Amino acid sequence: METELSKSLGAAHAIFGFTPFPAVAAAITRAGGFGVLGAVRYTDPGDLARDLDWMQDHTDGLPYGVDVVMPARKVEGVTEADVEAMIPEEHRRFVRDTLARHGVPELADGEPSGWRITGWMEQVARSQLDVAFDYPVKLLASALGAPPADVVDRAHEHGVPVAALAGSARHAQRHAEAGIDIVVAQGYEAGGHTGEIASMVLTPEVVEAVGPLPVLAAGGIGSGEQIAAGLALGAQGVWLGSVWLTTTEAALHSRALTRKLLAAGSGDTVRSRALTGKPARQLRTAWTDAWDDPEGPGTLPMPLQGLLVAEALTRIQKYGAEPLLGTPVGQIVGRMTSERSVQEVFDDLTRGFERAVDRITRIAGRNGT
Amino acid sequence: METELSKSLGAAHAIFGFTPFPAVAAAITRAGGFGVLGAVRYTDPGDLARDLDWMQDHTDGLPYGVDVVMPARKVEGVTEADVEAMIPEEHRRFVRDTLARHGVPELADGEPSGWRITGWMEQVARSQLDVAFDYPVKLLASALGAPPADVVDRAHEHGVPVAALAGSARHAQRHAEAGIDIVVAQGYEAGGHTGEIASMVLTPEVVEAVGPLPVLAAGGIGSGEQIAAGLALGAQGVWLGSVWLTTTEAALHSRALTRKLLAAGSGDTVRSRALTGKPARQLRTAWTDAWDDPEGPGTLPMPLQGLLVAEALTRIQKYGAEPLLGTPVGQIVGRMTSERSVQEVFDDLTRGFERAVDRITRIAGRNGT
Repeated sequence: METELSKSLGAAHAIFGFTPFPAVAAAITRAGGFGVLGAVRYTDPGDLARDLDWMQDHTDGLPYGVDVVMPARKVEGVTEADVEAMIPEEHRRFVRDTLARHGVPELADGEPSGWRITGWMEQVARSQLDVAFDYPVKLLASALGAPPADVVDRAHEHGVPVAALAGSARHAQRHAEAGIDIVVAQGYEAGGHTGEIASMVLTPEVVEAVGPLPVLAAGGIGSGEQIAAGLALGAQGVWLGSVWLTTTEAALHSRALTRKLLAAGSGDTVRSRALTGKPARQLRTAWTDAWDDPEGPGTLPMPLQGLLVAEALTRIQKYGAEPLLGTPVGQIVGRMTSERSVQEVFDDLTRGFERAVDRITRIAGRNGT
Repeated sequence: METELSKSLGAAHAIFGFTPFPAVAAAITRAGGFGVLGAVRYTDPGDLARDLDWMQDHTDGLPYGVDVVMPARKVEGVTEADVEAMIPEEHRRFVRDTLARHGVPELADGEPSGWRITGWMEQVARSQLDVAFDYPVKLLASALGAPPADVVDRAHEHGVPVAALAGSARHAQRHAEAGIDIVVAQGYEAGGHTGEIASMVLTPEVVEAVGPLPVLAAGGIGSGEQIAAGLALGAQGVWLGSVWLTTTEAALHSRALTRKLLAAGSGDTVRSRALTGKPARQLRTAWTDAWDDPEGPGTLPMPLQGLLVAEALTRIQKYGAEPLLGTPVGQIVGRMTSERSVQEVFDDLTRGFERAVDRITRIAGRNGT
């Protein structure tokens, strides 16, 4: 499954796999795809360096990339404490009450609150980049629009192409104007931040808007048939995130979350602002229901909401508060019904793709199949 | 573009076109597709007979079908007047006020209020069927779930297969159990009544749920590339509705509506209950905004909402009240940028399909292209 883009990046297959887990990213790359490590959870640059060292040792010289979260809009001279001070007491009380209602214990005094969505803050993302550029990464992706111009320039100086997610054709055009090299067209059905346009409509719109820039189709893709569909729509590759969450290499916080993912149907996700303040598709839980409840205080804008709920999410995960336990995931979760290795998932993708090509050539009345 | 299903129905291409306009349906059939005439607006069976006579004279013996709106759940002994009496005065006032705010004149005394969504009522649909079965229709489609068992039986006695729309795999399974022959998997991005699952995810889920029954992919399809995607996802054909609305054969109520459709982008639709009481994707207008406004009275359940707004829609159309003027249409509306004949649209679809097959076979490294 080769396109100009996959060839130029040195991957055997035009399958890009986004994941927060180094073991998953490395396995995607070893399987012949292009693994992209999400860096948002690395608040300590040393941890990122350690995991990139490990990736380097486990990818046989094959290509991989890094994804940072870095909005182009800059907030000058604002500290995390400044942002914390902007959170209304009503919202803090709502967090406390919701956790108490579900009997979620407090963290011990001084216990680190673990992963905070501080990666949204530009300083953190820049320290991640300082680390990433020390490694032979072959792609810099930005999950929240185009990064600032100096970051794009810096990537290009390192010979690293930059990819950015877009939820609309206009959004994609702005990326192209900002010097982005690859647009990831992220459809409504995708996990994480999405717009309202579904992949079937969005992919060709973005291809038309930014051509000849290469486009990756993202959202709703978890089988080889869906890969064939994405490529038929004009994409030069596909970008899969959700499907790796239930692989054996994935290091989810709790078994309970894995069980919830395996049991969920395609209708069990919701586009909610509960996680970050911007609409992001995730498992529907008692937590998202509370935030989406018109009787509640509602969510705060990014980055306030992420800071507001950071400690709460740590507690929910640490104590396995099952009704509240969730994760960003796309509608494809309905297809994730068994735990398998990345290699098995990957083999299924390439086999399903070949089946879909057989089918479509037969329908077209082409010979040779 | 042949599948088992298109062959069994006698169509050259597995492209099913749904439309309320006989001239469009006939042109789709003549172009080599399968035209399906929506019967919901025919409150007078004589009008339907007249238009089916015309279709018969303009389809050269090629196959076509009819679509009725007939929910399987029966309401015994309830008249239209009974239903009218259930509409709260607050909602009637909201309709009057909204129209007055936009300066929409009243109809003259005794002037017929034109198309009322009385087709939702079972008696009307049954009188439509009495007419339809007098013609050699090759498909009976039901836009709102499976029709009652006796209607399915009656179609089968006439040798006519029955198709029903489904927005989820569970919905599709119920259709299969009700003896339906073909499932139309209608994705979130489609015009008209839709669920929340996008076509990329829904199509293969429905194929898996009801196989070996044939599935048509609907929602987000308006180009040959999107047809190839739908077929790659396992469908035996595609079901297109929106794309015909801006053909030269379409008899829309007003030029203003055609202009609005041509100007709209993929982000200019909304899934709203304003039209029928169930979520249906349509152009976003001042009318849908009013109904979706949390400050307003909100919509009523089907069939109340349809009866409530019937006269208002006639007035909006008759007087061309542009800010309020809308129609059911899918996200593909962003691609509908010029008025063309059905034949031109159809040629574009088949050419685009061949291009997509070329592309996908090249990516797969197959020879023969």
